[in-house]
Amino acid sequence: MLDLRPVFEPERVAVVGVSLSNPFHPANIIYNKNYYGHDAEAFAVNPRGGTLERRPVFESVSAIPGGVDMAVLAVKAPLVPGVAEEAANAGARALVVIGGGFAETGPEGRVLQEELLAVCRKHDVALIGPNCFGVYSPPRVDTFFLPPERTVLPTKGDIAVASQSGAFLVDQVMTNFQAARIGVSVAVSMGNKAMVDEVVLLEHFARRDDTHAICFYLEGTDERMRSFMEVARDVTRAKPVVVYVGGKSERGAQAAASHTAALAGNHELMAGALKQSGVLEAETELEVTSFCKMLSYYHERPLSACNIAVISSSGGHGVIASDLCEPAGLNIPRFSEERQEELRALLEPNLHEIASLGNPVDLTGSASDQDFERTLDYLLSQNDIEAAMILTLPYTPMMTSFVGTRLGQVVKRHEKPVVAYVPDLAKYGMVLEGFELNGIPVVHAIEHAVQMLKCLRLLGETTCGG
Amino acid sequence: MLDLRPVFEPERVAVVGVSLSNPFHPANIIYNKNYYGHDAEAFAVNPRGGTLERRPVFESVSAIPGGVDMAVLAVKAPLVPGVAEEAANAGARALVVIGGGFAETGPEGRVLQEELLAVCRKHDVALIGPNCFGVYSPPRVDTFFLPPERTVLPTKGDIAVASQSGAFLVDQVMTNFQAARIGVSVAVSMGNKAMVDEVVLLEHFARRDDTHAICFYLEGTDERMRSFMEVARDVTRAKPVVVYVGGKSERGAQAAASHTAALAGNHELMAGALKQSGVLEAETELEVTSFCKMLSYYHERPLSACNIAVISSSGGHGVIASDLCEPAGLNIPRFSEERQEELRALLEPNLHEIASLGNPVDLTGSASDQDFERTLDYLLSQNDIEAAMILTLPYTPMMTSFVGTRLGQVVKRHEKPVVAYVPDLAKYGMVLEGFELNGIPVVHAIEHAVQMLKCLRLLGETTCGG
Repeated sequence: MLDLRPVFEPERVAVVGVSLSNPFHPANIIYNKNYYGHDAEAFAVNPRGGTLERRPVFESVSAIPGGVDMAVLAVKAPLVPGVAEEAANAGARALVVIGGGFAETGPEGRVLQEELLAVCRKHDVALIGPNCFGVYSPPRVDTFFLPPERTVLPTKGDIAVASQSGAFLVDQVMTNFQAARIGVSVAVSMGNKAMVDEVVLLEHFARRDDTHAICFYLEGTDERMRSFMEVARDVTRAKPVVVYVGGKSERGAQAAASHTAALAGNHELMAGALKQSGVLEAETELEVTSFCKMLSYYHERPLSACNIAVISSSGGHGVIASDLCEPAGLNIPRFSEERQEELRALLEPNLHEIASLGNPVDLTGSASDQDFERTLDYLLSQNDIEAAMILTLPYTPMMTSFVGTRLGQVVKRHEKPVVAYVPDLAKYGMVLEGFELNGIPVVHAIEHAVQMLKCLRLLGETTCGG
Repeated sequence: MLDLRPVFEPERVAVVGVSLSNPFHPANIIYNKNYYGHDAEAFAVNPRGGTLERRPVFESVSAIPGGVDMAVLAVKAPLVPGVAEEAANAGARALVVIGGGFAETGPEGRVLQEELLAVCRKHDVALIGPNCFGVYSPPRVDTFFLPPERTVLPTKGDIAVASQSGAFLVDQVMTNFQAARIGVSVAVSMGNKAMVDEVVLLEHFARRDDTHAICFYLEGTDERMRSFMEVARDVTRAKPVVVYVGGKSERGAQAAASHTAALAGNHELMAGALKQSGVLEAETELEVTSFCKMLSYYHERPLSACNIAVISSSGGHGVIASDLCEPAGLNIPRFSEERQEELRALLEPNLHEIASLGNPVDLTGSASDQDFERTLDYLLSQNDIEAAMILTLPYTPMMTSFVGTRLGQVVKRHEKPVVAYVPDLAKYGMVLEGFELNGIPVVHAIEHAVQMLKCLRLLGETTCGG
């Protein structure tokens, strides 16, 4: 089995193709960001040699004293197989080829790609790409050749990600994950995936101790997709796998074919097969973030979220949540009069007449932190309630900035998943952190809170009763 | 017809019920925010008189020299009819009753509400509420009794909003609109809507010169809903009306019934009726924002967005957009070889081999501002293209922070709607403002860009051909 450790844990990385004059050259960007920002030692390579910002530029990979274990190639395609050979001889067991000009361009490029692949196979080198952004493996290495001042990267976390589209990886994953405070263990832009593809990566991600959930952006239904699903069938028993499929529609499939040569089939068939493999298919780009957010908090099974309690301080929010839960397969069981009476007795007297306790529970704008605390504690103690959704309005008179921390303590006493909605304002940061630092993931739209619980519902692979 | 000008344009506002000791009392919050932040002159009223922060507190509305034209009542329900009578006698032609304890509490409260209504009718006073947040009418007046340091309000703009749920108004509208840079002309929390309801407001909004589009959150399908649709049939001929319906699902309808006593019916029937009335129904809370964002840029008809061009620098983004356009009823016509050749000739030579021009157009990460400019200009000149969607990656080497401004100039030469996606990073602010200050609305998810064009498609009331 292909060893991907040199790809993600290199000690010494050669960056081949740095320009001696253009700081915006992709190789310079990669060299600099690793030199300054990552743990691996980076070495610049350019046949002309010389210096770059007073540091040595090596004339070849083999000229680097002590060798390297990874090489990143940003040179013209025809030069790639030769440089690959040289890098392998210098000890590299991982190769990231970022430039294009290979199979994606036609028959000539395909030959070149085969040549490159043969070199890598001969030397047992793991090849990422060609025609890709490569890997982001914090704190070790980052081969994304995008100017770091023009992008953002999430922190180290426990979600492994791979994508067929570099843009999806950067915008829909890196940017959105960072905004949603989700960390990644590693991220991979697969490009032409001549050797390391979704199947190889899925197997690798499954074995990583630092990875609790896995996320893929894939296009098309080629043969690899079938192998992917076969492998996923095993992997998903232990680790959740989220897939977002591009090219689901007829026009989308045509668009995918024109940029990756992947062939798309009937999406309904594929969706069924993915489900059978235990894969969680995200329906929209933002659902990818909601699912991964949830999995970064809750990934150990058994978990279930079919029957949920919704606790709000506003009837309107309860209505919106109810409307969204139904199509998401989440059940909001109506509470018996008896349970409502028990709950009422726990609340401050000023709520007795005005709170609506049938589930969704509307504690009203007069509720205090303590009313929320007691309600959540009581409801999570009920056997039929598997999870809860808290919809906060951090501007009602009796709710304080402690509410998140206080509810987090309640959740710790129960073994049940809880998610929270907090409106998207920087000044609610203390409320938000109170929740998240105590184990309750927060999103900024009620529909995303529903998506988080839907993720667990899908993970439980159970059908919710009415 | 009821004159609502005193509600939205008061010169002198009495705030009845201020506390002399509790700065968090709703009346104090309202008094203070108007005293410091709005154009109307605010007068504090408390039967005990005295001073508040060195300003006089009047013992009654009638004690205010020169009278008032609006009164905001934050006193116990049984006192409300009497204070209303006194305020009317002091000249008030608008009354905002924020406290609860009326029809929403049962028969006794219903009697009290009828009493209040009779007073208002007798004196030709427009009544907002009871049991509501009231109105936000910048720069004149703001009766929302929420601590301003714990909420945000959008700037003055051209969307009028009214909501059956105060929380929806504050979070799904005020907060989200402010984040999306959408302004409101006025916003109304209707509460029990004893007199001023969705029908009265719709008629009023239709007549306002400062309002180009209208947005409602409504629950239930009572008789007023039928009248609303009848009025909407006329209004929507001149101004777009967006409605988000709460209580669409069975559980949602039950939840709505428990907090507003509104009866919900079959949503499919209602959706059909809304459509026939020309109303644009938003499907999700975030679609409300996307629709209103679009309408704040494009509200003059005829407009249509059935056949669109998608221009990106990434194949993946084009695929995602294509998948979303199909269910949104948007058509991405495949370009002829001839058109692709014409377009190719306009691009820099480095793109000739790598760009994918069949629509979605993928100019690739090597495209410059100028390539985007020429592509957009060429495509908007085509008769069959009604609108365009720009998907930017503001980190590709040749795209600069000028791109928004440059594309904005192109759009000004054509009479066609264009929307843009820019990833959600503060540091892309210059790109974003370049677009928006030149007439191109920007959102931060591809699905929201699709929703913006879907809004125009619905507005065109046309069916898109394949």
